[in-house]
Amino acid sequence: MADKVWRNARLATMTGEGLGIVEDGLLASRDGLIAYVGPAADAPAFPAAVSEDCQGRWITPGLIDCHTHLVHGGNRAGEFAQRLAGASYEDIAQAGGGIVSTMRATRAATEAQLVESALPRLDALIAEGVTTVEIKSGYGLSLTDELKMLRAARALGEARPVRVATTFLGAHAVPPEYRGEADAYVDLVCNEMIPAVAKAGLADAVDAFCETIAFSPAQTERVFRAAHAHGLPVKLHAEQLSALGGATLAARHRALSADHLEHASSADVAAMAESGTVAVLLPGAFYFMRETQLPPIAAFRTAGVPIALATDCNPGTSPLTSPLLVMNMAATLFRLTVEEALRGLTVNAARALGLSARIGTLEPGKACDLAIWNIGEPAELVYRMGLNPLHARVWSGA
Amino acid sequence: MADKVWRNARLATMTGEGLGIVEDGLLASRDGLIAYVGPAADAPAFPAAVSEDCQGRWITPGLIDCHTHLVHGGNRAGEFAQRLAGASYEDIAQAGGGIVSTMRATRAATEAQLVESALPRLDALIAEGVTTVEIKSGYGLSLTDELKMLRAARALGEARPVRVATTFLGAHAVPPEYRGEADAYVDLVCNEMIPAVAKAGLADAVDAFCETIAFSPAQTERVFRAAHAHGLPVKLHAEQLSALGGATLAARHRALSADHLEHASSADVAAMAESGTVAVLLPGAFYFMRETQLPPIAAFRTAGVPIALATDCNPGTSPLTSPLLVMNMAATLFRLTVEEALRGLTVNAARALGLSARIGTLEPGKACDLAIWNIGEPAELVYRMGLNPLHARVWSGA
Ligand SMILES: [Zn+2]
Ligand SMILES: [Zn+2]
Repeated sequence: MADKVWRNARLATMTGEGLGIVEDGLLASRDGLIAYVGPAADAPAFPAAVSEDCQGRWITPGLIDCHTHLVHGGNRAGEFAQRLAGASYEDIAQAGGGIVSTMRATRAATEAQLVESALPRLDALIAEGVTTVEIKSGYGLSLTDELKMLRAARALGEARPVRVATTFLGAHAVPPEYRGEADAYVDLVCNEMIPAVAKAGLADAVDAFCETIAFSPAQTERVFRAAHAHGLPVKLHAEQLSALGGATLAARHRALSADHLEHASSADVAAMAESGTVAVLLPGAFYFMRETQLPPIAAFRTAGVPIALATDCNPGTSPLTSPLLVMNMAATLFRLTVEEALRGLTVNAARALGLSARIGTLEPGKACDLAIWNIGEPAELVYRMGLNPLHARVWSGA
Repeated sequence: MADKVWRNARLATMTGEGLGIVEDGLLASRDGLIAYVGPAADAPAFPAAVSEDCQGRWITPGLIDCHTHLVHGGNRAGEFAQRLAGASYEDIAQAGGGIVSTMRATRAATEAQLVESALPRLDALIAEGVTTVEIKSGYGLSLTDELKMLRAARALGEARPVRVATTFLGAHAVPPEYRGEADAYVDLVCNEMIPAVAKAGLADAVDAFCETIAFSPAQTERVFRAAHAHGLPVKLHAEQLSALGGATLAARHRALSADHLEHASSADVAAMAESGTVAVLLPGAFYFMRETQLPPIAAFRTAGVPIALATDCNPGTSPLTSPLLVMNMAATLFRLTVEEALRGLTVNAARALGLSARIGTLEPGKACDLAIWNIGEPAELVYRMGLNPLHARVWSGA
């Protein structure tokens, strides 16, 4: 028995090393999970309430965007225009721009307003086949406002048929009221915010921004310790602008992922391989900031570090809501292969969220989260720019 | 009297030097043309069959994509995947890839098949507010197949509410049957194809690819002479890969536009300024081919050469169907301002097609082609990547 059967499909299961292609495939769901996936010829008889002829279309796992700042107040289009017109970063900061302007807009917004403003961005992701999205806090930077952001993120998961993984990123920036007192702010993060967030069950992981313009490795380590003390796994924004060894620190703390990584060293790569930490690459931010330092892709490959990809959707450095474009940028700018790009938004993204047991591949027992595409071959998903060939999207079997 | 009135709108008319902003604007259409556009306070009384409250949304001219190869057989996703996997251009050419593979697929397709395969691409453009699109031939490379492509392009204009400008690009590449005999192929283009195309009324302009791997300036000039002899204006793919002086040649022949231009010299810029030839920049191809040589933007600005932008939608070097992304790439990669980006897809794109009298700005007497946007300021159209804020699109008043 199955609730629904998709037949006459070509499957990219993402199992094994490559795309896990099955021609003449069949997939059946039961109670929101995959009951069978594989060659139609090997499938048991499935009396199903609903049977759909996929007419040879391709089915992949639903896409997973494992690093976003989808919830935020305002936007920074005006700042973008000013920079193009010649304003320096300093000019903009002095005019109240930069992350502080997003913090102010986020603090000024109600939870409902944050949900409402994030919905068009979430809908854009969903329209391209996203079935799971990670959403970080980190623009509230006070206990109240960080909790508000995380509640908004959870509410987005109720408003749409999508799985939301929340990440507490209180250590994103030092808020103005703590200027020059970063350690005192880290005290607040560790002693008040993380306990409150954990108690409310509002975060699935804890993240920090380890960078010269944000938090030091020592401060980051304090955040990690507090997270672990409350049973939360950690992730890290690391080696985006400079090499501080944050990725190595993250690996030492068994981080699910280290993200950005343009300046990662061979020691970082080795540490990540050892700990099984996923490298989350964010080509949208690389592109938008006109970065030229490439992440050490070849070293990740050699060391066997899994590579995930994400939009990094955020108002300052990556106002991007297209996972298809992320794959194109990863291929064009980072020279990832088609297989690497597709695995980066499926199996490896699931791993970066600690959700490998439930999503990321087409396997019996996993959530029946599917993207069904009008394409002749998987490479078309990576090759095109601005054309969305999604035929249908299935979330938890429906 | 008006057929329709849009009130409570913010207008970016694109008249004058900048965006031509009118707050508290009103726009009225009559018989498919703009009857009034300007401040609501100055508008005459308009008894209208239909009146729409735009609720403060922004209205721009419908977008104009002035350089596309939208009609073509097949795609080159497989070739893209092979290159990422390490194959050289030579490997791919020897395996029958490259432009010849698109030529073969185009020749093998019927006119109806070409229309059908182009419709998803056209629909993607339309979904982002495009109301006029230029479509080139150039993958048929025989009289029959070039005519077939141009008929398919015209048919697309019947299939959808969009204005199609067709361009004959017989001199796109030397077809295999003329290998080593480029001059004989140019004879065919000039003596048979252009007369037949002109007689059938299938082309609004004639284009050529002036490049070391395509046609020399002398061959290009023969094409231009034949075009002028048949009353057709000319355009040119110029200075994309090397500096051959094609842009200067185009200017000498009063070309509507010279396109690509990464390698344009100061002499080219001066000649284009003198002749009023538009510089059509194609940042999608620049990005996709990982070009590093920037077009001489500052020189174009100083000389007063109008800058237009386009997708260059084509299967080999720019599989791009998003005018919004074109603007983002022009800003991010070429540092065009928000105003330049928006003028590039409206007023200056109209000029690149010789259609300035009919489209490109919001002015009385021009076609009522509108894009109505859910944005707070025009910069949002350039800043975001992958989010389509189009609220509605109006073509010829409807
Ligand atoms: Zn981030
Ligand atoms: Zn072209």
